Amino acid sequence: MNDSAIDRWMRQALEEVEAALMAWVPAGAPAGLGEAMRYGVLDGGKRLRPLLVLAACEAVDGRRPAALRAAVAVELIHAYSLIHDDMPCMDNDVLRRGKPTVHVQFGQAQAMLAGDAMQALAFEVLTPEGAEAHEVPLALQARLCGLLARAAGHAGMAGGQAIDLAATGKPLDETALRDMHRRKTGALLQASVLMGAACGAPAPAAQQALSDYGAAIGLAFQVVDDILDVTQASETLGKTAGKDLDANKPTYVTVLGLEAARQQARLLCEQAHAALARSGLAHAVRLAMLADKVVDRDS
Amino acid sequence: MNDSAIDRWMRQALEEVEAALMAWVPAGAPAGLGEAMRYGVLDGGKRLRPLLVLAACEAVDGRRPAALRAAVAVELIHAYSLIHDDMPCMDNDVLRRGKPTVHVQFGQAQAMLAGDAMQALAFEVLTPEGAEAHEVPLALQARLCGLLARAAGHAGMAGGQAIDLAATGKPLDETALRDMHRRKTGALLQASVLMGAACGAPAPAAQQALSDYGAAIGLAFQVVDDILDVTQASETLGKTAGKDLDANKPTYVTVLGLEAARQQARLLCEQAHAALARSGLAHAVRLAMLADKVVDRDS
Repeated sequence: MNDSAIDRWMRQALEEVEAALMAWVPAGAPAGLGEAMRYGVLDGGKRLRPLLVLAACEAVDGRRPAALRAAVAVELIHAYSLIHDDMPCMDNDVLRRGKPTVHVQFGQAQAMLAGDAMQALAFEVLTPEGAEAHEVPLALQARLCGLLARAAGHAGMAGGQAIDLAATGKPLDETALRDMHRRKTGALLQASVLMGAACGAPAPAAQQALSDYGAAIGLAFQVVDDILDVTQASETLGKTAGKDLDANKPTYVTVLGLEAARQQARLLCEQAHAALARSGLAHAVRLAMLADKVVDRDS
Repeated sequence: MNDSAIDRWMRQALEEVEAALMAWVPAGAPAGLGEAMRYGVLDGGKRLRPLLVLAACEAVDGRRPAALRAAVAVELIHAYSLIHDDMPCMDNDVLRRGKPTVHVQFGQAQAMLAGDAMQALAFEVLTPEGAEAHEVPLALQARLCGLLARAAGHAGMAGGQAIDLAATGKPLDETALRDMHRRKTGALLQASVLMGAACGAPAPAAQQALSDYGAAIGLAFQVVDDILDVTQASETLGKTAGKDLDANKPTYVTVLGLEAARQQARLLCEQAHAALARSGLAHAVRLAMLADKVVDRDS
């Protein structure tokens, strides 16, 4: 597949995700809640998780309408976590995706509620009713809800954030750092791949390979995030640069050094490609391309 | 059924719910997160929502293991909403169920994360895997996730809280007040009944009657809450009394007056009983008893 075909695929996928978010995140939720939810998730972000869901679904020749719902649900969980993470009691950040953060724009109470409602909405989107029920068979609804809940919860993202909270100002070794990031960022990225795969019926070996791929790029993403935090300006990132250093948080750069962190990112990218090669899936080219994008990005 | 039989049923049901919460809310979640989650949900609360789930399941002769999971999931959503609601940016309350609130005990960041993780855990509990997967058939997992998500989200509890937030200090008429409470408290109480009913296969008329019952006691609960807020001391309530008045929030007492509010509660209780009579269900006696408990309580 040449570059322009890949770009065209990405553009189309992103348009589809954006339109679905626009349709499903309710403008009409009461008392400004819908406005805060839409502000927190529309018009911004790389949409890496949705792209992983859609690419994994294509790799297993899965059900596209179900994958689109999974893509939106994962992005809603990601966006809610950013809203809560930015609040004064957590990272106290005022800039996100180049805009004032949700609590700066709408107040802390509305920001907390918007995040809470977005987590619930993720599971609403996964369990369509009435005329849309056919888009996701019931057994797949259950499987997607289970995967998403476990990636978002105490053993995944929320657990990783708790470790992050406790780790500020403390030295972590590489093992502890990896455990934190596997939960905090990796779990949801890996779940994106697994949810896309669940929309089809991959053979066990392919399923395992996709899981390995998801684990590798999940960690690679965070290593690159840590690198960008020290090498890029806030304008490029669309969020406050250097904040991990300022907050005295352990990162791959502080623990390994910049060059070893870069090497680690490359190694993980190779592992992701090796997993895809093992998968035996004929249509994994977009997953391969996304692995490269995760590592070769500047924001 | 005589009083002691009812009390025995309640005691057994509560023990079962408590044991399940103890088993499923993870003590081992990292970096103090599990401790905060358990503090926020164990050893406290009336467990009205779990009792409604279990009583509704019995009324339709449904699957008990599934109903127990639904009971725990609903209580997790309720408990997380209290944790977030008590935070300084919302109600800023320091006392809950007779103990310091979660953010007082563990800090605001951990309280927010514990609430977030508890919402995710609710959906984990509803989607058991491996050896426990048989407890809830996949189609029922999907149905329970959908009911819970919609009750918790923008159209239900979170939406009601947003209206509540915006209403502070403003006059509301009875219609607007009812709309707020139907979402804020009523949606999850009604969902408790519907989730219990989903564990069986009630006829459409019985299903509708149970839905009506749930709507009536959902609203009755909040009317009585508003009454207790002005008539009871903090020690009896286990939370700060008079806080709605202090916060200048519209309540059934401020909008209708105390006597009319009491009359409203009695009327809703009668509507709940009438719905059960309509249901044609032979084993709805515990739902009837719970309707009385909702209205005749002092905390």
